[in-house]
Amino acid sequence: MNNFTFYSPARIVFGRDTQKEIGALIKPHAKKVLLHYGGGSIKKSGLYDQVVRSLNENGVSFVELGGVVPNPRLSLVHEGIALCKKEQVDLVLAVGGGSVIDSAKAIAMGVYYEGDVWEVYANGLKIDKALPVAIVLTIPAAGSESSGDTVITNEEKGRKYGYGSPHLRPLISVMNPELFFTLPKNQIANGVADMMSHVFERYFTNTTHVDLTDALAEATLRTIISNAPKLMEDPHDYDAWAEIGFAGTVAHNSLLGMGREEDWACHDMEHELSAAYDVAHGAGLAVLTPAWMRYVHKDNIDMFVQFAVNVMHVDKGLRDKEDLVEEAILRLQGFYRRMGLPQSLKELRIDNKQLTTMAQKATRFAFGKENTLGGLKKLRWEDVLRIYESCQG
Amino acid sequence: MNNFTFYSPARIVFGRDTQKEIGALIKPHAKKVLLHYGGGSIKKSGLYDQVVRSLNENGVSFVELGGVVPNPRLSLVHEGIALCKKEQVDLVLAVGGGSVIDSAKAIAMGVYYEGDVWEVYANGLKIDKALPVAIVLTIPAAGSESSGDTVITNEEKGRKYGYGSPHLRPLISVMNPELFFTLPKNQIANGVADMMSHVFERYFTNTTHVDLTDALAEATLRTIISNAPKLMEDPHDYDAWAEIGFAGTVAHNSLLGMGREEDWACHDMEHELSAAYDVAHGAGLAVLTPAWMRYVHKDNIDMFVQFAVNVMHVDKGLRDKEDLVEEAILRLQGFYRRMGLPQSLKELRIDNKQLTTMAQKATRFAFGKENTLGGLKKLRWEDVLRIYESCQG
Repeated sequence: MNNFTFYSPARIVFGRDTQKEIGALIKPHAKKVLLHYGGGSIKKSGLYDQVVRSLNENGVSFVELGGVVPNPRLSLVHEGIALCKKEQVDLVLAVGGGSVIDSAKAIAMGVYYEGDVWEVYANGLKIDKALPVAIVLTIPAAGSESSGDTVITNEEKGRKYGYGSPHLRPLISVMNPELFFTLPKNQIANGVADMMSHVFERYFTNTTHVDLTDALAEATLRTIISNAPKLMEDPHDYDAWAEIGFAGTVAHNSLLGMGREEDWACHDMEHELSAAYDVAHGAGLAVLTPAWMRYVHKDNIDMFVQFAVNVMHVDKGLRDKEDLVEEAILRLQGFYRRMGLPQSLKELRIDNKQLTTMAQKATRFAFGKENTLGGLKKLRWEDVLRIYESCQG
Repeated sequence: MNNFTFYSPARIVFGRDTQKEIGALIKPHAKKVLLHYGGGSIKKSGLYDQVVRSLNENGVSFVELGGVVPNPRLSLVHEGIALCKKEQVDLVLAVGGGSVIDSAKAIAMGVYYEGDVWEVYANGLKIDKALPVAIVLTIPAAGSESSGDTVITNEEKGRKYGYGSPHLRPLISVMNPELFFTLPKNQIANGVADMMSHVFERYFTNTTHVDLTDALAEATLRTIISNAPKLMEDPHDYDAWAEIGFAGTVAHNSLLGMGREEDWACHDMEHELSAAYDVAHGAGLAVLTPAWMRYVHKDNIDMFVQFAVNVMHVDKGLRDKEDLVEEAILRLQGFYRRMGLPQSLKELRIDNKQLTTMAQKATRFAFGKENTLGGLKKLRWEDVLRIYESCQG
């Protein structure tokens, strides 16, 4: 086990009707908030009114900024920063899913960063301050409600970068599984693929003697795999949503990565797909993850045998490790298919014209830096290209 | 799944040499601390000097109060409160195990509580403020390094009460598994029994649809059960200690109880043993837990079947549930025995003279309140007496 610091201070307020508590929860921390959200769905559903009522009842004033889109844009972040400064806002309240929360975090740190906040993402700069962020979650997937992470797309430059800081850990995250009932099935599936990937990125490692986090990660994956298909049958299944919602938080609140070298190659490879083709993040991950597994598993076959047995319940003889692992990957693909997720770049309508460009961008080779991706196996841009090619379909 | 709030803000700094960082970690939060500890062992081991050096190097001044004993005493708490007030201390630094931390938490809230802090324990009063608490952990067991809980013994009244508040969650907890190498084997075993009980108290529940926390709890228990015996062979096994140390934190940072009705009957019953006979908490739990399981399992046999299969790996036919559960309990007792833990009250040198008194105190029947203990099965004092009697040995 490696040395680590575990710090996950977000207060997770979970369950029925909890969105009505948001004003009371914020009151001790802020007088004026930026109410940040996406399209009109929270107005149609009545959630917007519930939140506004709760803020009003608790004497919390607000200014608002809607319009966050999937793969949230830098331009709106700039707008939010200007608004917060002008209105002297002291907390950003995100009502939405991962994109809204990521945008809110970018605004929260941008208020204190003197240059263009994109520089923080592009250069991995260290920040020492951000406005507090509170959340009413409407899509459980990104895990952004407990993490200090944010991903923003610079639409002018066609680049999508992630960034993380303990200062971006949310203060309060409210999660009512009932708010997820109206999500379309493709969004449910994308969310599930994303949260599973958050576990995979931490689980697959060369670090040894990490029994506890191995077992916790496997427990989380099994819970997701057994509950997610229920939502495709009945999106109003509160119990299944409660498991998936909470699992999404546990998947990304850092716990499962403690003491381990993490991987994150699939996320980095997927960000290029999303940036270039605007595909859904989870859908891209469902295509890339099995291809990544097939490409890297030989480098730590025992890790993948453990995955096969403890997560995918493959009970074949343990001596033919290659066979065992392939069976596990097939089962994972079967699960994704059952969730209606794509299996190939072709299904994502991604042709082969930009594969090299994306591989060189993903590794930042294109920008003269030539990093590798991943921890379990270090991937150069040629490796990434081969993985992209292997899932063309 | 029940509604819940998860809030576990302690910054856990884990791994080799981390105790040397304590001064730097405290510096942003305090100018003057109360350095609180137990006997002379931290002086002999050199830990005291390392902590003092780190405080000095970071310009953090301190006053000190040693002398905490197992089942920490109210009288020392009173002394600590007076010292903190007189010296205008702004953080309590506990260097020790659960007893020192529990004492530190009592002092931290007592500084702000106007009456006798014992009233807070005795009457479960709500507090709204406490000094921050930082920790260098020397015994991983109590989980007090991440919890908001504290247990104090009023030695004059012969009573031992627990108390919990979010305001008592530690700010910083430093855990270096190397500091555990010198623990005597009986303390290792007691600690393991205690942390397992922290999981059991949350795991055994009548709440349904709690798949994730079921699976996380089972993962934690399996990790403890597979690693703890390694420490009885070799107390210098860093890897095993790292698993046990981190498991002790996960066992008690609240995560595993989220969305579930918790039990805590065994802890409440054990506190009477400790208060009356000053036995080690973990030893008492190792005696009471199997007896409690035999007494209550019929009330939710399927919960215990799940425990048998998922934790104790009993692979007998699932239809004979009674047989399956008894086998699991026998295996748990076998594990405790392997750890050198006692199996009966007789081994703890507890005779049958005070069993009724303890049962009536545990349920507070003796004080005219007549509460029940536990969640899975509500125990009255007569039930508690029968459990005590069943483990006389």
